[in-house]
Amino acid sequence: MRDRNIIDELSPVFYPRSIALVGISNNFTNVGQMFLHSLLAVGFPKIYPVNPKGGEMAGVPVYSTIEQIPDEVDLALITVPRESVLEATRECAKKGVKVLVLYSGGFGEAGPEGRQLEQEVVRVAHERGTRIIGPNCVGPFNPSAKLIPQYILPRESGHVGIISHSGFLLYYLIMSVTDTGLLPSKGISCGSDCDLSCVDFIDYLGNDQETKVIIAYLEGIRDGARLLRTAREISHSKPIIVYKGGHTDAGMKASASHTGTLAVSTSIWETLCKQTGIVSVDSFEQLMDTMLALYHLKAAKGKRVAIITTPGGLAVTATDACRKLGLEIPRLTQETQNQLSEILENVGTSVVNPVDLGMIGALHPDTYMKEAIRIISHDPNIDMLMPAFTGPPFDDDEKDKRTADIILNEIAVGGKPTVICGAIPEGWSRGELRFIEKSNVPVYPDPKRAAVALAKLAEYSEFLRSL
Amino acid sequence: MRDRNIIDELSPVFYPRSIALVGISNNFTNVGQMFLHSLLAVGFPKIYPVNPKGGEMAGVPVYSTIEQIPDEVDLALITVPRESVLEATRECAKKGVKVLVLYSGGFGEAGPEGRQLEQEVVRVAHERGTRIIGPNCVGPFNPSAKLIPQYILPRESGHVGIISHSGFLLYYLIMSVTDTGLLPSKGISCGSDCDLSCVDFIDYLGNDQETKVIIAYLEGIRDGARLLRTAREISHSKPIIVYKGGHTDAGMKASASHTGTLAVSTSIWETLCKQTGIVSVDSFEQLMDTMLALYHLKAAKGKRVAIITTPGGLAVTATDACRKLGLEIPRLTQETQNQLSEILENVGTSVVNPVDLGMIGALHPDTYMKEAIRIISHDPNIDMLMPAFTGPPFDDDEKDKRTADIILNEIAVGGKPTVICGAIPEGWSRGELRFIEKSNVPVYPDPKRAAVALAKLAEYSEFLRSL
Repeated sequence: MRDRNIIDELSPVFYPRSIALVGISNNFTNVGQMFLHSLLAVGFPKIYPVNPKGGEMAGVPVYSTIEQIPDEVDLALITVPRESVLEATRECAKKGVKVLVLYSGGFGEAGPEGRQLEQEVVRVAHERGTRIIGPNCVGPFNPSAKLIPQYILPRESGHVGIISHSGFLLYYLIMSVTDTGLLPSKGISCGSDCDLSCVDFIDYLGNDQETKVIIAYLEGIRDGARLLRTAREISHSKPIIVYKGGHTDAGMKASASHTGTLAVSTSIWETLCKQTGIVSVDSFEQLMDTMLALYHLKAAKGKRVAIITTPGGLAVTATDACRKLGLEIPRLTQETQNQLSEILENVGTSVVNPVDLGMIGALHPDTYMKEAIRIISHDPNIDMLMPAFTGPPFDDDEKDKRTADIILNEIAVGGKPTVICGAIPEGWSRGELRFIEKSNVPVYPDPKRAAVALAKLAEYSEFLRSL
Repeated sequence: MRDRNIIDELSPVFYPRSIALVGISNNFTNVGQMFLHSLLAVGFPKIYPVNPKGGEMAGVPVYSTIEQIPDEVDLALITVPRESVLEATRECAKKGVKVLVLYSGGFGEAGPEGRQLEQEVVRVAHERGTRIIGPNCVGPFNPSAKLIPQYILPRESGHVGIISHSGFLLYYLIMSVTDTGLLPSKGISCGSDCDLSCVDFIDYLGNDQETKVIIAYLEGIRDGARLLRTAREISHSKPIIVYKGGHTDAGMKASASHTGTLAVSTSIWETLCKQTGIVSVDSFEQLMDTMLALYHLKAAKGKRVAIITTPGGLAVTATDACRKLGLEIPRLTQETQNQLSEILENVGTSVVNPVDLGMIGALHPDTYMKEAIRIISHDPNIDMLMPAFTGPPFDDDEKDKRTADIILNEIAVGGKPTVICGAIPEGWSRGELRFIEKSNVPVYPDPKRAAVALAKLAEYSEFLRSL
């Protein structure tokens, strides 16, 4: 029953029927102005700009007060100066606006006086049942509700839920997800979490049918105990991947003057992740790489990896990268080794693990890589696979597509979580990888990044097994 | 005088006047065949294919024995099967070939018997003064000598010297360097180092006028004492950046069956790097990122970084990334803070460090970022700068070029080593960064990668100061 509540409760956030833009001005840096043009462009139905001057903007009538809006308002974006926020909140509450997004800064993050003002704003809003997101944020994004606050953001909907304490980073993450070939389901920038917080949004996205994996950029956490309960519950059914800002001394100070939320020390954060199954990453690159792995791959039974390469140098570096992250590169069983030796004849230089198929393997992956994947998939010592591809001499659409299909089929039949290391510089032929990249087998350009993806998958899989 | 010797001694390696391709066949996977077509395409003057069958290949006469070649041979690529390598070496030595590149594997890396054969090959070669590169390698690359062994490699010459124990990774690194906008001066794949070794090539590239920075993928080291002496000397005048494979338990085993060189434990390697000034990296991505910083930037006076961003989330993550790598983010002096407050008025949200210019800073970098860079460059507490750009709403060629020029000029006048964090996803406007990327100020897509580049620069600068 609780699940239904959060979905209903946050419905005005993600599925608002009407939006008021309070404090909109003609200045092109005004965020209300940006919202207005973007919402109009996608055909969002009910938009109510509010500015004391009244008049019209982009063909839409501007109301001089909130009270004058001739409709119920689900969501209001407040971009008035800090000193007018309390008054705007009072008017919105009186009007019965369901949720306010406070764009303005200068509250909790700006010291004791700001914090007091923030508390007063929340108090006034709650008197009438109005909820607040922020301050210092840009609020929600939801393509299925035509809620596209910036014209550069994708209009099509996918399955990655995004939460960010930073407004810019919400947009950055939405675009970065789109770059990977996936699409966001919903996104939210929640700023300083003065009322509705990142934990509410984890809860919402955890229960949202559209969302398959949750990624988040978080700074401080206001309610650790609730995060622990909520994240632990959500992690059972979908992965939560978090890039946590503000975990070093200087980073904490920077975070305090950014979102003003309470910093969490590294050791507490690590313990919390272990207990909740939150997968913690330490860069935007890792966030995207891990997302791809957890989105596409099923849980691994353990952390034993088979590396299959054609050049020896990649075998060595991929092995190092896996070991440094605590993954195991066990010897293949004698039976596997015998089968590899038989079918690959003398082409390879090693059948132990890492398996090195040699140059002929690079030139004929449809035979040698395929056979290696087939045989190794049966090895009981192996939980995950990392084949490495280095590209054929030429691109040949038909042949490359066939090779990709053969490899993808073998991976699917083998049934073990697999990521591909494609060490192919720009300008080189990408061959079969052009087609594999469009599949559900993640491809990484560097053995270290492929190893990180497998390590994160192993970590999350271990959490699932521990339940 | 010693310097002159290595340049002369390895002249037949990098500036061969003639090349024999011993063991060339019509099989398209034959490496001799690939060399032949590529060398012909670039107009390398004297190529002598050798195969018992004689005849002609690609219009070039094939000699049935090495003896029959009617010319002196500087360099011979040997691609005969392992069991014929000793005989081919004997014939080459007799002919007076100066240097052999042994492509074939199955020597030292394949066990005691292989090692014995390898020693015999070296002994036979040395009797006549012939030197050997390999086994298990593809030898040299040098665009200034038209020595282009693969048609995909760049034909124009630059200033990055490349050494790789792995043949594939030599080509991979050449292409990766080219992707960054730099170009290689020379490259060498040296396999198992049975005679001429990676240390000889560090020495050569260290003394090569064309080479400004040396990057290397190394596995085992045969002569640690000589590496220590040589690298320490070369590091005075140019940086040596090494990605070392085979430093974990499983990685060492994989390396032993790849190049067969002796593995070096992590702690010994770290000590050696500290003593020699070698900058050690742990992925291909880091190798390229560090190369760009050490190629373009002058030494830093210390490890104190000023971060200047427009979105707060980047300020926090960049600060965290720097601190985790041991860089310092000191408070700016009161004078700097006053100046920033005055000129930036109330637009920014922090003038301490990280400096957060707020949204207006993102929209008008030609004013606000420029001024911040100017003021902070004078701060005595700061050694290096990391400005972050997030892109304007639209690309505007003329305006973006002007902005880039203004920023680049301010960085140049300020005189402090600077890297740029450009957190801009594909498909977003890149604005001024499109022009900055073509300059000598390195741009990285992720705050962590920018931080790594500064940390590596600080490390190398500290070595230089310790001399």
